[in-house]
Amino acid sequence: MAIPAETFFLSGEQETTLQQQIQQIVSEAILSGRCLAGEKMPSTRHLAEHLGVARITVTNAYTELVASEYLTSRGRSGFFVAETAPQRPILAITERRSSAQIDWARKISQKVSDALPIVRPANWRDYKFPFIYGQSDARLFDHRNWRACALKAVGRKDFDTLATDHYERDDPMLLEFILRQILPRRGITARPEEILITMGAQNALWMTAQLLLTQRRKAVMENPCYPGLRHILRQSRCTLDLVDVDQDGLPPERIPQDADVVYTTPSHHCPSNATMPLARRRALLDRAERDDFIIVEDDYEFEMSFLKSPSPALKSLDRSGSVVYMGSFSKSIFPGLRLGFIVAPEPFISEARALRSMVLRHPPSHMQRTTAYFLSLGHFDAQITRMARSYRARRALMEQSLRQHGLTPAAPETFGGSSFWMKAPDLVDTSKLAMDLRQHSVLIEPGEAFFAAGDESRSYYRLAYSSIASARIEEGVALIARVMEDHLGAPLPDRE
Amino acid sequence: MAIPAETFFLSGEQETTLQQQIQQIVSEAILSGRCLAGEKMPSTRHLAEHLGVARITVTNAYTELVASEYLTSRGRSGFFVAETAPQRPILAITERRSSAQIDWARKISQKVSDALPIVRPANWRDYKFPFIYGQSDARLFDHRNWRACALKAVGRKDFDTLATDHYERDDPMLLEFILRQILPRRGITARPEEILITMGAQNALWMTAQLLLTQRRKAVMENPCYPGLRHILRQSRCTLDLVDVDQDGLPPERIPQDADVVYTTPSHHCPSNATMPLARRRALLDRAERDDFIIVEDDYEFEMSFLKSPSPALKSLDRSGSVVYMGSFSKSIFPGLRLGFIVAPEPFISEARALRSMVLRHPPSHMQRTTAYFLSLGHFDAQITRMARSYRARRALMEQSLRQHGLTPAAPETFGGSSFWMKAPDLVDTSKLAMDLRQHSVLIEPGEAFFAAGDESRSYYRLAYSSIASARIEEGVALIARVMEDHLGAPLPDRE
Repeated sequence: MAIPAETFFLSGEQETTLQQQIQQIVSEAILSGRCLAGEKMPSTRHLAEHLGVARITVTNAYTELVASEYLTSRGRSGFFVAETAPQRPILAITERRSSAQIDWARKISQKVSDALPIVRPANWRDYKFPFIYGQSDARLFDHRNWRACALKAVGRKDFDTLATDHYERDDPMLLEFILRQILPRRGITARPEEILITMGAQNALWMTAQLLLTQRRKAVMENPCYPGLRHILRQSRCTLDLVDVDQDGLPPERIPQDADVVYTTPSHHCPSNATMPLARRRALLDRAERDDFIIVEDDYEFEMSFLKSPSPALKSLDRSGSVVYMGSFSKSIFPGLRLGFIVAPEPFISEARALRSMVLRHPPSHMQRTTAYFLSLGHFDAQITRMARSYRARRALMEQSLRQHGLTPAAPETFGGSSFWMKAPDLVDTSKLAMDLRQHSVLIEPGEAFFAAGDESRSYYRLAYSSIASARIEEGVALIARVMEDHLGAPLPDRE
Repeated sequence: MAIPAETFFLSGEQETTLQQQIQQIVSEAILSGRCLAGEKMPSTRHLAEHLGVARITVTNAYTELVASEYLTSRGRSGFFVAETAPQRPILAITERRSSAQIDWARKISQKVSDALPIVRPANWRDYKFPFIYGQSDARLFDHRNWRACALKAVGRKDFDTLATDHYERDDPMLLEFILRQILPRRGITARPEEILITMGAQNALWMTAQLLLTQRRKAVMENPCYPGLRHILRQSRCTLDLVDVDQDGLPPERIPQDADVVYTTPSHHCPSNATMPLARRRALLDRAERDDFIIVEDDYEFEMSFLKSPSPALKSLDRSGSVVYMGSFSKSIFPGLRLGFIVAPEPFISEARALRSMVLRHPPSHMQRTTAYFLSLGHFDAQITRMARSYRARRALMEQSLRQHGLTPAAPETFGGSSFWMKAPDLVDTSKLAMDLRQHSVLIEPGEAFFAAGDESRSYYRLAYSSIASARIEEGVALIARVMEDHLGAPLPDRE
């Protein structure tokens, strides 16, 4: 590939000649690794035109650079970066850069990287037994039809939709499908003005915190909970109260009276998968009305209720408009899609739309339209059915293997989902266990990340089966049990 | 299309029988417009299974609903929503909803919708003479190759890239191209750790405000400036100082000494298109170093410098690391893509990455990979060349028409770009002019939105030629001149 002339600029320094300046910028480009050995240099004519200098000046500079072995001349083919060109070690570049005088620790007013939850290694797909949560399984994904929908969405007919930044509104086709097909399955009726497309559930949660919380307000969070939410709420600097969940999820009677916003996962609590019974849902809504707080309902993974019919969303029972509901396609399509939605009263949605517009304008139109086609052509429903069938089989295998090897879930569940919330013997530190298991190519999620604090959290862990092949489950579970026994220094009590 | 059984839920109320509950949820679904006339109801067997009731209960409920004309029975084909089914007017639904007791004005802690800049009508493509800025022109876009790249990016080979939410890093292929091909054209050398992909320039600007500003810090903005930036800085609640630009852009000597962050568009000022000369750039960088402020350089539309070779970015002269640089593909590909990038010292980038991860995780992988292919296969360069050629021709036509009809640019320019910054006679209010021009199917951008305040701003306006066909330019300009003369009550002085 030829190096474009446009990548060279004169420094404009008065002390050096034009020819010297050209020699300097070319050698600098080679030393910095920007121009690689063997690449073709711009022709003398092109470079002279671009820099606005006489061609002979460039020719003289190139000749000098050949003499100093930065370039080679191949006759009529032109000039190339020499294979023997001098190289500056990467370190030197770093050094030059790090001599910057800016004190960034002082310049940065909002330090976000503190306590950023890290759940899995970037190369998790290289692990043989990835019991990790929330990633898509290429074996279950309807790749062919997704591809067909992507192609359709990039067609000429849809060009305006694709190209324009219509931040005032979302893709009407996607909205229509969510309103008419997705929300009714959760028992929710909504108007187009009551829904906003987001960059996944994470983005939706973040927006609620921005719009509803301040330093003087109080948020209530389930304990344990989704680590991404804790990160958001800590950054918002609001007062934060934790309420321990029980086997029915969040107990409404334990919510403090001065709560402003209550975050909850009633359909299946994250990470324990507990489902909140109807009576408790009504009690929660009554509390919200009486004590005037807003409920944020994260209805993630609602599609995966294959063990029994899903309970309708809390939002479907909401008469006073106190529930801000959110769903996501991350689990049912794939997380790299970054699409979710918020359903809430119009005054909230219009502010959320303004916030979204300021922060990022809108989720890319192409992703919205591709998803709209995938949903409306029926591929989504087929995909969910296929996933549910596969998860059901994997879950049965998991249950059998867990029992066989003496590993015990923390609580009974009835929902389905894609993971088990597990409890190890008290003496086991699952964070250490997880690190050791990596040596055996096993990935598990230690409980620590889900809890606010406290040592008792360290014996919990999550085992997901959404990314692991059925054929690997038994061997993986056996490895977990074996390494756990090493940690305990004793056999697991419940091993069959 | 059949209505899925999964969209019905029992209310669980004790006072009514199961059959009554079923009648109620079905009639409610029809009244609310969720189930439409002619649609097929779930079979009695399916609905009974889903609700966990006896089939006869559903059959009895359906029979009652037929009697009350909500449903019709078509023998073996099953039950359908009756064409004569009662309908509740939309208003009633709205009423029920708006009876909510929540006082959202009080609940919402951060009101973002105030002063949200509105630049163009949503249906701008329906206007015959759209002199509006920043939207893509379908006639110039290489749709065929973009489509091929989108298809390639959704291939099986790239599935992991597409599906995973790898928020730790950006698409390595896209990064590589930006580092090796885009940045060098701006004179910038950077390492992968010094760059972050963003959801367009808007998202990049927003992140700098989040990370660098607080209520106790001072931001400096050019006047006039990009309205989206003013919205962001006002929301950040920092102290805000405006510095009037002159024909060379931002004058460094007028920057207050206590500035913390200075926002600037040196390559061509927005909206006047002034280019900052080299000497002034050096003076600006010297000031930044002496007074310890950060410069945010918005290098939007740098590809469109077709009148002369572009000047290298301010960032390329930055020795102390005080410049946070941002670019975007919105103008050169299309704005609905929502992709841009920040180049800055590593400590800043790592915080920006953490912030992005918290707010939205990452720009969708598919958009990143499609763009990477479009760039690396050479389509991007071809596209820019084609756009520049077309813009050059349109610009010449514009200049000729403007001269002919007595409309005058506010300042001479040398860069290129895609718009003219115009000055009407002092008596003309361009906001009113713009509203009147809509009647003639002409869209212009009044100056008001670009200025902080002051009545003198009202005689400025922007005319962009990136979305208007060459053949329409002369007629559109003539219309602007005619309506302007109506406003003035006199002929324009400079008309040829």
